[in-house]
Amino acid sequence: MGGDFGPDIVVPAAALAFEQLGDHVRFLFYGDRARIDAVMNGFPALRRVSDIHHTDKVIPNDEKPSVALRTGKDSSMRLAIEAVKSGAADSVVSAGNTGALMATAKLLLRCLPGINRPAIASVFPTMKQETVMLDLGANLTCDAEILVQFALMGAVYARVVKGISHPSVGLLNVGTEEMKGPEYVRAAAAILGEVEFPGTFYGFVEGDDIPHGTVDVVVTDGFTGNVALKVAEGVGDLTGAFIKDAFQSSLLARLGGLLAIQALKKAKSRIDPRYYNGGMFLGLNGICVKSHGGMDAYGFSRAIMVAANLVSQGYNRRVAHEIEQLMEQETFFSGIAQQVVNPA
Amino acid sequence: MGGDFGPDIVVPAAALAFEQLGDHVRFLFYGDRARIDAVMNGFPALRRVSDIHHTDKVIPNDEKPSVALRTGKDSSMRLAIEAVKSGAADSVVSAGNTGALMATAKLLLRCLPGINRPAIASVFPTMKQETVMLDLGANLTCDAEILVQFALMGAVYARVVKGISHPSVGLLNVGTEEMKGPEYVRAAAAILGEVEFPGTFYGFVEGDDIPHGTVDVVVTDGFTGNVALKVAEGVGDLTGAFIKDAFQSSLLARLGGLLAIQALKKAKSRIDPRYYNGGMFLGLNGICVKSHGGMDAYGFSRAIMVAANLVSQGYNRRVAHEIEQLMEQETFFSGIAQQVVNPA
Repeated sequence: MGGDFGPDIVVPAAALAFEQLGDHVRFLFYGDRARIDAVMNGFPALRRVSDIHHTDKVIPNDEKPSVALRTGKDSSMRLAIEAVKSGAADSVVSAGNTGALMATAKLLLRCLPGINRPAIASVFPTMKQETVMLDLGANLTCDAEILVQFALMGAVYARVVKGISHPSVGLLNVGTEEMKGPEYVRAAAAILGEVEFPGTFYGFVEGDDIPHGTVDVVVTDGFTGNVALKVAEGVGDLTGAFIKDAFQSSLLARLGGLLAIQALKKAKSRIDPRYYNGGMFLGLNGICVKSHGGMDAYGFSRAIMVAANLVSQGYNRRVAHEIEQLMEQETFFSGIAQQVVNPA
Repeated sequence: MGGDFGPDIVVPAAALAFEQLGDHVRFLFYGDRARIDAVMNGFPALRRVSDIHHTDKVIPNDEKPSVALRTGKDSSMRLAIEAVKSGAADSVVSAGNTGALMATAKLLLRCLPGINRPAIASVFPTMKQETVMLDLGANLTCDAEILVQFALMGAVYARVVKGISHPSVGLLNVGTEEMKGPEYVRAAAAILGEVEFPGTFYGFVEGDDIPHGTVDVVVTDGFTGNVALKVAEGVGDLTGAFIKDAFQSSLLARLGGLLAIQALKKAKSRIDPRYYNGGMFLGLNGICVKSHGGMDAYGFSRAIMVAANLVSQGYNRRVAHEIEQLMEQETFFSGIAQQVVNPA
């Protein structure tokens, strides 16, 4: 029921995902049966692999997470997350209220053993390969240990879902030299430089390294990650607007634009936010993916594909295994962090 | 002597600035006399308004700020800053080591009365008017009061240098609702919503609001601001590369690109980093501007123009006046901040 369009988008999106995922997938829809049913009429094949669970209750987009937790019982969002908890579903995908989704998922699913906080991760286009970035806003402030856990979760994603055997992991900072940056970032770097984790620690990266594709995984706190993501979106809008202006600035430019229009559309598709839709809530004891609220059916289907990928690759099992390995080194890495914070 | 090219860039840049500033400007050059002299030979008009102060010592680009402070005596950078301190110069412009420049300027010039920390500010192109953003990396972590001082410094810049009578000031955050964000950001918002300062407090803005031009001044901590700035640069590179690829992808696109080339160049010039070069160190008892190290003469001349503007508009006098006004309201606003941090 979430997002700007509810079932009008979610049902066709499921049909698109079904086309790609094939017969082994099933969909559980939670929300207003009449509305869902009406859209489903256009997709008879999807209906055969779908169950609709009716509820009147919906968590509004502007509801505070704390209120959603108190009053959200029987809401479509909560019921969908409960389906993951009970094992009825392998994953949940929602275009609803991000804060409420995170709070409810955290409460019901809990974190994986050894993970202190879940993170929101997403995949971005770059000048080289795609890059995974986290956290995009679940944890506004982080300490060194949390950043190390994020590095692990991001590295496992790159390894099992993207198939990169030795993903490089960079810590976002204001410079690449060892002495640069806040204490908690330097402490995280010291730990990642010493422990074994499922990636290669690259060191510090700066903001421009994200679009340049310097590393496979960029790790940062949720405040910085959220700002970075939105700055990137906004600069995309800005350059798009300037280029559009340019092609309308003269007759010659207009003609040039017409000739190049197919090529330009292809360039635009390389940074299509619909293709990259799907914020993964990593570190929970269950798979939960957030779609942008304004997405169309294709965009939402991409978020479903992210969830399906995490499920089929056994992402959580792998993270649980890796965090166990890391925790065996914990005494060691706590010592390192201490040295950074209080150098001898 | 700083930056990638030293006098080869700095001297021609001064000549360009001289053309615009006219006869009331004078230049003091600090560094290797022979190298400066050699370049100066090409600019006889500039020579008539210039003094060269010889020194052999240069602070390397990779020197730690603490080392630069200890060993930087008689360096070109230090001597130039001392000229501001002694009143021999109204401002200093450098393309050298940013950390060393900030540390030395802070030590020698000190902060303006009532300002606790200087900030690095710069001006950015947006979809509307240009936007001032600070801090870009001088203070990695900030508290509410520091952010309020940044808001004041940014607002005075927009007012006196850009001529905006009621500049709108936004606080960078992860959402626009009142309850969003870390405590120190919410506390700063509460203060700015109540006190009188030389701008209009817009509220929270998000990362995409920077390129969208939602407000005249964007205020954030130095860690986030530095990342945001570099992400924006990197995304500019990325979209540029994708568009270049597009125009090379087919014969038709190549022809289109040729026809539109003038218009596209104009679009590119609207985000020309050389035009926007010049990081202002605001809040010091003296004007200090940092040029990007890789700039050409035109880019460096823009940084000189920033410094000249700050001087001619009496920026520091205005900030000192406004901070005094703000401090008279201090007891009041400390109370507000307290309420946000410890709500009843």
